[in-house]
Amino acid sequence: MSDPSIVEVLRIVKTALTEDLGDPPRDVTSLATIPADQRRTGDLVARAAGVVAGLAVAQTVFDVTSTGTAQFTTVVADGDRVARGDVLATVTGPTRALLAAERTALNLLCRMSGVATHTRAWADRLEGTKARVLDTRKTTPGLRELEKYAVRAGGGTNKRMGLYDVAMVKDNHARAAGGVVEAYRRVRETFPEVPVQVEVTTVDEAVAVVDAGADFLLCDNMSPDLLRAVVAAVGDRAELEATGGLTLDVAAEYAATGVDYLSVGALTHSSPILDIAFDLRG
Amino acid sequence: MSDPSIVEVLRIVKTALTEDLGDPPRDVTSLATIPADQRRTGDLVARAAGVVAGLAVAQTVFDVTSTGTAQFTTVVADGDRVARGDVLATVTGPTRALLAAERTALNLLCRMSGVATHTRAWADRLEGTKARVLDTRKTTPGLRELEKYAVRAGGGTNKRMGLYDVAMVKDNHARAAGGVVEAYRRVRETFPEVPVQVEVTTVDEAVAVVDAGADFLLCDNMSPDLLRAVVAAVGDRAELEATGGLTLDVAAEYAATGVDYLSVGALTHSSPILDIAFDLRG
Amino acid sequence: MSDPSIVEVLRIVKTALTEDLGDPPRDVTSLATIPADQRRTGDLVARAAGVVAGLAVAQTVFDVTSTGTAQFTTVVADGDRVARGDVLATVTGPTRALLAAERTALNLLCRMSGVATHTRAWADRLEGTKARVLDTRKTTPGLRELEKYAVRAGGGTNKRMGLYDVAMVKDNHARAAGGVVEAYRRVRETFPEVPVQVEVTTVDEAVAVVDAGADFLLCDNMSPDLLRAVVAAVGDRAELEATGGLTLDVAAEYAATGVDYLSVGALTHSSPILDIAFDLRG
Amino acid sequence: MSDPSIVEVLRIVKTALTEDLGDPPRDVTSLATIPADQRRTGDLVARAAGVVAGLAVAQTVFDVTSTGTAQFTTVVADGDRVARGDVLATVTGPTRALLAAERTALNLLCRMSGVATHTRAWADRLEGTKARVLDTRKTTPGLRELEKYAVRAGGGTNKRMGLYDVAMVKDNHARAAGGVVEAYRRVRETFPEVPVQVEVTTVDEAVAVVDAGADFLLCDNMSPDLLRAVVAAVGDRAELEATGGLTLDVAAEYAATGVDYLSVGALTHSSPILDIAFDLRG
Amino acid sequence: MSDPSIVEVLRIVKTALTEDLGDPPRDVTSLATIPADQRRTGDLVARAAGVVAGLAVAQTVFDVTSTGTAQFTTVVADGDRVARGDVLATVTGPTRALLAAERTALNLLCRMSGVATHTRAWADRLEGTKARVLDTRKTTPGLRELEKYAVRAGGGTNKRMGLYDVAMVKDNHARAAGGVVEAYRRVRETFPEVPVQVEVTTVDEAVAVVDAGADFLLCDNMSPDLLRAVVAAVGDRAELEATGGLTLDVAAEYAATGVDYLSVGALTHSSPILDIAFDLRG
Amino acid sequence: MSDPSIVEVLRIVKTALTEDLGDPPRDVTSLATIPADQRRTGDLVARAAGVVAGLAVAQTVFDVTSTGTAQFTTVVADGDRVARGDVLATVTGPTRALLAAERTALNLLCRMSGVATHTRAWADRLEGTKARVLDTRKTTPGLRELEKYAVRAGGGTNKRMGLYDVAMVKDNHARAAGGVVEAYRRVRETFPEVPVQVEVTTVDEAVAVVDAGADFLLCDNMSPDLLRAVVAAVGDRAELEATGGLTLDVAAEYAATGVDYLSVGALTHSSPILDIAFDLRG
Repeated sequence: MSDPSIVEVLRIVKTALTEDLGDPPRDVTSLATIPADQRRTGDLVARAAGVVAGLAVAQTVFDVTSTGTAQFTTVVADGDRVARGDVLATVTGPTRALLAAERTALNLLCRMSGVATHTRAWADRLEGTKARVLDTRKTTPGLRELEKYAVRAGGGTNKRMGLYDVAMVKDNHARAAGGVVEAYRRVRETFPEVPVQVEVTTVDEAVAVVDAGADFLLCDNMSPDLLRAVVAAVGDRAELEATGGLTLDVAAEYAATGVDYLSVGALTHSSPILDIAFDLRG
Repeated sequence: MSDPSIVEVLRIVKTALTEDLGDPPRDVTSLATIPADQRRTGDLVARAAGVVAGLAVAQTVFDVTSTGTAQFTTVVADGDRVARGDVLATVTGPTRALLAAERTALNLLCRMSGVATHTRAWADRLEGTKARVLDTRKTTPGLRELEKYAVRAGGGTNKRMGLYDVAMVKDNHARAAGGVVEAYRRVRETFPEVPVQVEVTTVDEAVAVVDAGADFLLCDNMSPDLLRAVVAAVGDRAELEATGGLTLDVAAEYAATGVDYLSVGALTHSSPILDIAFDLRG
Repeated sequence: MSDPSIVEVLRIVKTALTEDLGDPPRDVTSLATIPADQRRTGDLVARAAGVVAGLAVAQTVFDVTSTGTAQFTTVVADGDRVARGDVLATVTGPTRALLAAERTALNLLCRMSGVATHTRAWADRLEGTKARVLDTRKTTPGLRELEKYAVRAGGGTNKRMGLYDVAMVKDNHARAAGGVVEAYRRVRETFPEVPVQVEVTTVDEAVAVVDAGADFLLCDNMSPDLLRAVVAAVGDRAELEATGGLTLDVAAEYAATGVDYLSVGALTHSSPILDIAFDLRG
Repeated sequence: MSDPSIVEVLRIVKTALTEDLGDPPRDVTSLATIPADQRRTGDLVARAAGVVAGLAVAQTVFDVTSTGTAQFTTVVADGDRVARGDVLATVTGPTRALLAAERTALNLLCRMSGVATHTRAWADRLEGTKARVLDTRKTTPGLRELEKYAVRAGGGTNKRMGLYDVAMVKDNHARAAGGVVEAYRRVRETFPEVPVQVEVTTVDEAVAVVDAGADFLLCDNMSPDLLRAVVAAVGDRAELEATGGLTLDVAAEYAATGVDYLSVGALTHSSPILDIAFDLRG
Repeated sequence: MSDPSIVEVLRIVKTALTEDLGDPPRDVTSLATIPADQRRTGDLVARAAGVVAGLAVAQTVFDVTSTGTAQFTTVVADGDRVARGDVLATVTGPTRALLAAERTALNLLCRMSGVATHTRAWADRLEGTKARVLDTRKTTPGLRELEKYAVRAGGGTNKRMGLYDVAMVKDNHARAAGGVVEAYRRVRETFPEVPVQVEVTTVDEAVAVVDAGADFLLCDNMSPDLLRAVVAAVGDRAELEATGGLTLDVAAEYAATGVDYLSVGALTHSSPILDIAFDLRG
Repeated sequence: MSDPSIVEVLRIVKTALTEDLGDPPRDVTSLATIPADQRRTGDLVARAAGVVAGLAVAQTVFDVTSTGTAQFTTVVADGDRVARGDVLATVTGPTRALLAAERTALNLLCRMSGVATHTRAWADRLEGTKARVLDTRKTTPGLRELEKYAVRAGGGTNKRMGLYDVAMVKDNHARAAGGVVEAYRRVRETFPEVPVQVEVTTVDEAVAVVDAGADFLLCDNMSPDLLRAVVAAVGDRAELEATGGLTLDVAAEYAATGVDYLSVGALTHSSPILDIAFDLRG
């Protein structure tokens, strides 16, 4: 499970710290009450069961507020399941730095762990089938790379990053090009190095685009019966992604159709956070 | 309801577009299939009932991808309630620019509207009482200003921006300063221009800090009975904020205690999106 | 000093870019001579001393022409005084985008800074007196919000936005209503939520309208002696605004009469620009 | 002298009226004091000598506020010289509509007439020489078409509209293309239908680009002596535009060099308004 | 394709609105049933295929009834071909203003588009030949400028405006002057700045007037054979306009004679409207 | 058959003459060739069969160009049927005045007679039935009063003038008022002096509004069967108007349903002219 890029993590951490501390940064309460040389220790503790993601990101926050003087020790790893009350990591450093980092670190860690926890529920539901859960481009603006990392931490699969690295032929493109097959061909020829996925709506259309060379299809809002028909018609010649209003309740039914992927926008657009606290030791 | 700052909106829009389009920006599917001079019209349509926030942010996305040539006409305004099927705004412009903007604009608009919708549910529940719903610092990293704007659009109240512009004396500060009253005094003297809120845990503590001059108290995880006792003891001398695991089900009960604010982290950390689509006209 | 609204800034930027680049936008010279992937850095440099206003607006122009890929770093802030040769901001991005933005960004920045510089001269002249300089509705059509922002950046005060948010009883209204006091009363009753200013021409009239409840008077084209008499008669019961052909030469003399405001249409209708250049680095 | 486009005039008038009247539009003072059915007559009167421009634009304002029921009768035409006290036009209509239109109509008419008056001063100074005064792209954002119209009304010449309809090869283009002649050639070949102007700095450079086919040169910040040398070297083979800090004091000296155009940014960026009032008849 | 003049458009719009709304204007049905603050959106939709003309005129109607608060967004431009069902423009504004404008806007838009559609049929028929279709003075009283604009939008050519700006020597003038050549000479001398067209009836007459200097001939009701003879005799020395009962069926035959123009009065006196509706959205 | 108002006729004649002669008026060809004191006689002659309307209007044109010195003698009257070759009127006056009036007089007379001729065809088709043909508001902008007069001349009936003098409750009003009956009641109460027509779509709706007091119904796009059902249900309690795409071919079928009126927009929006010439006697 590859890490998010450090440049991206630093960008996000800096942005988030500036939101909370202002520019120049200051925590007025701590400056007035807490001695500059006081050091303390605190624990990141799960307040609910779930899957963790974002420990390195949280550490970055403490490192930045402490100018690298805080010690951050992990107890669990990203992707691990934790129970309520589990300690995830422990931090020792200047109290002012710990308090300055606390909210920003938690905001990132809770959110990423929320995505991982939600994804894990899907991955668990699909276990034993061929289907894998896929994320979408419906991510939080500014956090796409972190959220896609969290999806991976939860056992999901990323469908690459954006409009630039994978083509997706949908109705508007087909219409402009004079048909979905023609649209596929144009993308294929114009950007030979880019993977191309094609949205289809019927069995015939699926067969036609696969005959034209497409190996990755998107089946939007199809019924399980229709999906089964597409799977039967296409066989191993292309991978199939089902999408459109999927919920955990119907996950198994859709996975049973034989498709390769179920994609779920809610993983990144509507997951509740995993509640995690930072408890300074007494 | 003042706008979020231009520079902040531009920062977020640029970041989000780069996530989706790469740098240099390109949408490979559209480049291959859609003529550069084709123009179309699309509608932003609510797929569920809720409260809208973020139209100007969405407009910014379309303006940036179209070099300002898209026309964006709003039908409703931020803060308006909408029903499923309502058109929120209409955009006409180069098809390529519309498709390049679509996902990023929706990611921002759906998220902000989700926050506004959630906040509106709280504001409605508190109507007729003295209490107002307050947000917290538990915001999405990188989106604090937009989310706080969305809270306002939903009828909520912002509790200022971060650690830098309002002091909050909590247990760690009290402990370092040798008591909560002393901590309050230090902050008051060190930063006379900054508002100071003080967390209290008992009626006596509340009276003591108010006697010392505090006019804004935080009551964390207090029962309704205890809150009523604090309200009775403090009277009009200070504003009171209740917080800690509040849900819509108990909102009325807590509001009835006479506190001024109920603060709800979930407004910004766990609101589902409001589903909004961008439908290109045929 | 609150920002102008995003939607208003985008409206103006789009309009101005379309004027300069056409629709669809193109800069024929750059398209023919400058490689698409060339990036350069340029500085916005003051060519004369003055006060800056409009940096966020200028940034918006560069963001729109560069699809958000230009980096805009400010060295000074709106409202700062700058000397000839000072760098105000630095921009790095695709050369084509920089050249496409240059003239539009400068047209806005130079004009807004011209207004701020002119206003600053008035604010400086009034320093140490009670009087503040006020703008009017004599603004450039389409730029009122930006110009009123620039007035604030220059140390001036805005007299609200238009005919809709503040009432001003003048001779035509008095005549229609049967006297200035009666006109004041009608406005007061019809729109109780709207501030009402009343134009007066004599001491007796001033006293009469203040006795009727008015707390904001306009004294048009009064001599300093007459102004002093009105100030003496009205005392603290109303704020007074002097207007009519005021120039910097007589500013101190008029301020010395004890009025609260001097309003100056020329701030927005006849300020020369502040000369600012965009120098690409070699 | 062709009219500015209707859509552009409507866009500006609507924008300016909304700035002044709000949306929905209301003039609170008039609503409270002036009967809906009262009609009056007013005169647009010059308060200073100058050249008029913008009468149709002013009429549009009155038509829009009166739902077309105001009568607007012109006494002079755009481009005419007027003396202090001259009536330019007379308007009869509902008093409320007249007062709602007054400031917006004047803001447009005074500004456009200010540009025309300033331009006329240049045109007069150049009379009897071959040189004509030219405007630039240093226009007020949002008002370019109206300002260029006002320049024509004042006897000036427009240098087309923007970056899209005429090419101008400057140092940055020459540098990117490997020399000014090469840059000229590229533009000439890429956009054969677009006029190309080339900035030159020496006599040799002027001869070189004219030999390459250029027929329109820009001479920025050249002394009269250098301009004369360029004129002598180039002869009738190209038109020459002198620019750079030109003022009325040196206009004749520069015109005498034999150049075809003097371009003056201040026509549009720093002209004071022409003072015009709207006097309701008693 | 230059716009019709603003003042003329305003005159027509005001006249037409007064016809429909009376003076003072009122729409009794809407006043009684529709709330003043209700806003809706409507689309101008083609009910038949054709060529559009008059969008700016239609916009003016909505602007005037809404005091500039309606938003009018065009999807197509004047001169574009549209299919049945195509949306031409979208308007959002106060419902009362939309309904007050609807019929007047449609009456203008449908009529102008009818002229453009009819003209386009002629222009298409003449494509590939040298001949262009010309309008006449047989226009709808009060709408000449708009109809001539619509002819241009449909690909036709205007034969200037009226009796004042172009001379046309016909039989009555020839008879009064003592011959067609003499009539031509008198006009030529009396109004040297005015173009002169001469009506001829034979080859000899054509040669005679061309020898006398005429360069624009009118051939009324000539057969194709006679036209060919005139073309052969005159050569490039004059432009020829054929007129008189021309229909689309014979257009190609007449164009093949080598004349420069076919003029068709029916373009403006007998074109059916293009059916366009204004559909308020549900 | 009442005349159109003279003020309206003069307005139209002046407008149309200015279009053709310019301002100040001149006919350059006649000025150069025809002696000022020459007088001639001409005939207005029908070139096709039809019904005449507009003779008084045509006379007005000749009177205006001749300063009242032309003699205009009618042979037929408005409303009369004429055959090809029939003389309608004869005019004697200064030749220059006759030629200056010719085109404008014909443009008005041919158009009005075209409307009358078209209307007559409908009136003839309905003869023997109860139904009468009705015009609509789909008139030529600026010519409504003249066209409605021409409809009367052709045997049609006017449905009053505009939105101001008769109410028409349609779907948008019903929707805003909460139902068609409620909308009817509001209009009835608000404007008791104004006739109210109500659009209905079903028999039940027709009965409901008639029960509520309505006495004039509009049946849009109903089939003959449905119309018959409405007629049966309503009886004599209300007048019924059928409309929507009616053509001469189905006129009898619709008239047979028992409705009172058939309304036909094409009478005024798409009638071809009646060809009439002005022949100067030799």
